[in-house]
Amino acid sequence: MTMPPPSAPYRFPVAARYAGMESSPLKDIFALAARQDVVSFAGGIPDPELFDLEDVAACYDWVLSHQGHRALQYGVSEGEVELREQAARRLSRDLPTDASQIRVTSGSQEGLFVVAEALLEPGDVVLVESPTYLAAVQAFAVHGARMIGVDTDDDGVVPEALEEAIRTHHPRMVYLIPTFQNPTGRTMPVARRQAVADVLLRTSVPLVEDDPYGALSFTGSTWAPIASLPGMGERTLLLNSMSKLMSPGLRIGWIRAEGPILDTLAVAKAAISMQSSVVDQLTVARYLDTADLDGHVARVSAVYRERRDAMASAIAPVLPEGAHLTHPDGGMFLWAALGEGYDAQRMLADAVAAGVAYLPGWSFYADHADLSTMRLSFVTHSPEVIAGAVERLGEVIAQHRRA
Amino acid sequence: MTMPPPSAPYRFPVAARYAGMESSPLKDIFALAARQDVVSFAGGIPDPELFDLEDVAACYDWVLSHQGHRALQYGVSEGEVELREQAARRLSRDLPTDASQIRVTSGSQEGLFVVAEALLEPGDVVLVESPTYLAAVQAFAVHGARMIGVDTDDDGVVPEALEEAIRTHHPRMVYLIPTFQNPTGRTMPVARRQAVADVLLRTSVPLVEDDPYGALSFTGSTWAPIASLPGMGERTLLLNSMSKLMSPGLRIGWIRAEGPILDTLAVAKAAISMQSSVVDQLTVARYLDTADLDGHVARVSAVYRERRDAMASAIAPVLPEGAHLTHPDGGMFLWAALGEGYDAQRMLADAVAAGVAYLPGWSFYADHADLSTMRLSFVTHSPEVIAGAVERLGEVIAQHRRA
Repeated sequence: MTMPPPSAPYRFPVAARYAGMESSPLKDIFALAARQDVVSFAGGIPDPELFDLEDVAACYDWVLSHQGHRALQYGVSEGEVELREQAARRLSRDLPTDASQIRVTSGSQEGLFVVAEALLEPGDVVLVESPTYLAAVQAFAVHGARMIGVDTDDDGVVPEALEEAIRTHHPRMVYLIPTFQNPTGRTMPVARRQAVADVLLRTSVPLVEDDPYGALSFTGSTWAPIASLPGMGERTLLLNSMSKLMSPGLRIGWIRAEGPILDTLAVAKAAISMQSSVVDQLTVARYLDTADLDGHVARVSAVYRERRDAMASAIAPVLPEGAHLTHPDGGMFLWAALGEGYDAQRMLADAVAAGVAYLPGWSFYADHADLSTMRLSFVTHSPEVIAGAVERLGEVIAQHRRA
Repeated sequence: MTMPPPSAPYRFPVAARYAGMESSPLKDIFALAARQDVVSFAGGIPDPELFDLEDVAACYDWVLSHQGHRALQYGVSEGEVELREQAARRLSRDLPTDASQIRVTSGSQEGLFVVAEALLEPGDVVLVESPTYLAAVQAFAVHGARMIGVDTDDDGVVPEALEEAIRTHHPRMVYLIPTFQNPTGRTMPVARRQAVADVLLRTSVPLVEDDPYGALSFTGSTWAPIASLPGMGERTLLLNSMSKLMSPGLRIGWIRAEGPILDTLAVAKAAISMQSSVVDQLTVARYLDTADLDGHVARVSAVYRERRDAMASAIAPVLPEGAHLTHPDGGMFLWAALGEGYDAQRMLADAVAAGVAYLPGWSFYADHADLSTMRLSFVTHSPEVIAGAVERLGEVIAQHRRA
């Protein structure tokens, strides 16, 4: 038997798609942000004190008492029928949906990965908002896709820029987060949604519409998905998640689609993870059937609104002249562009030293990053904590003011 | 706005890896097998009556009562530390393992997919047992890998054939299920394991060792994984699952690895699904910490042994002369090769008409399928039901006896 010498540890071959990805700057940032003495605005982490733990626990108890043998047994890749019915019922408020058009996924992340598996070939172009959600970009990138950022303004992606990018780059799909976007918090108004739909209908490019935050409205208004506009239902893969509304720990989300792609999504899901946790699926279905999710989300949104107000009013005065700040009507994030000369990544060490953390914005760009940007999650801390931490952040920004 | 004519429904682009996979012959078989009037030996479905539902429900209750806010919150891609500690504790009976060497996955299927993501490039060769587990083949195939079957005998993969295949095909990895294999039920004896390890050490090809069934022993003996042999720990990715021991519905498994590949596995897991259900992870950890899994598995194994005996003694007399039947000492499956002239796929319609279903063996071969083979799961039904159904299967086999 040949033993390897102790001085030469075995190296596994690593696929090119993960080469050099053993760690990431973001991982280091989250590690920093997790320090006890740091108020972190970095993660999009729901406040656990706002979880509807009592009702969720009651639903687990009910499922294990009434459907226990089924909950512990294998399910189907498409998802448990009760959950698909509840998902269809919620979606049908804006977009007529049958349970057969739902594919359950283990959170939106797996939903994005399933979509990438089903649609993307190496070398394909995916058009994304500039900036966009970084974990979606990763799910597409490991499939060999090339992301190209499309210009946005305060109303979201610019239709003319989208059409130009489609004609130039012939993308396989367009990925958008139209409501309370991550990372900017921006929402596309109805007219903009129609203009974007018109472009997609004209060019026949499919849409992947990610809507994890849409129910977290601070105004009482909600926005129907682009998928609900005439002609768009059949060419949109619409993703929802329970992570921001009920619990991220459960890892339950779904994709809404029409036609033969539903079969491909189910085959991809089976290859990736066979099926999502049947216990968790049945529990979420029970919760959607019996608990008051809308009431719960309204309570959570009211708290988040106060925190957005606290952050927005604290940060406006400390931003440099010419800075740009978004004004989200819902969701979890504020987005600040400090302006030319600032480097939010370089500033972060000083911010952490001052006891406050954020996510530098460069990581949300597919290309042409604005290095002066930062994402600030306002949902985790109380208004008082937010105010104090933003004040300290203001001092750090002042120190970095360009001479 | 251009609307598509109603006669031309929108067709999503589908990646080549899933082209033509909208349905599968196996899906049709499982649909047939699910008929009320059919006794199915097709699926590897644990008997739900044997689930330790009471203890599992108590663990969910405990987790939600004592760790509720954490259970509903985001976790980490590596997996919750309590579960990794319990996994390491169990593995350390045969192979010293630290919690830091565990990566939690949503069942073994996601474990196989994570491994494929981390290691495989399109065009890579994966050597597999002939026959092998079909869902593993699928997880590798959608990554563009080419599977090549290596000859096996009643002791598992043949070391000389493995070495020859490695020298001929330069595989990226070797995938083996050494204990109570799916689909054959066969187990590699200790000397064979060492011979296989010697080949892998000489050729420096990594091993993916899948061990979901190893604890389901009918003899009281268990087999240490190949990963525990000298030199093999650092070059083996060892997969375990709770699906066959505790519950498939929970979708919890793990990968044991050493060195830098652990980081790649975590990054791949994050891209695929961020993390596994925290509720389910903490519940499995609590179960492993407080319930008697070994006692439970011993009780389940005793029942399965009776059912194996019932199936083995019923089927032996109805097999044609020259047929080959495996004699599993554990696990869930018997494997029968009826011999030349028989086509188990073609025979299935008659079997289902007679009220009994199995899985035709062709689907378990990467290449050069023996069409006369069938996989029979003995775990789902009582000895009486098994005996009656096998008798009817015998009549069908007799009808198909070659003239």
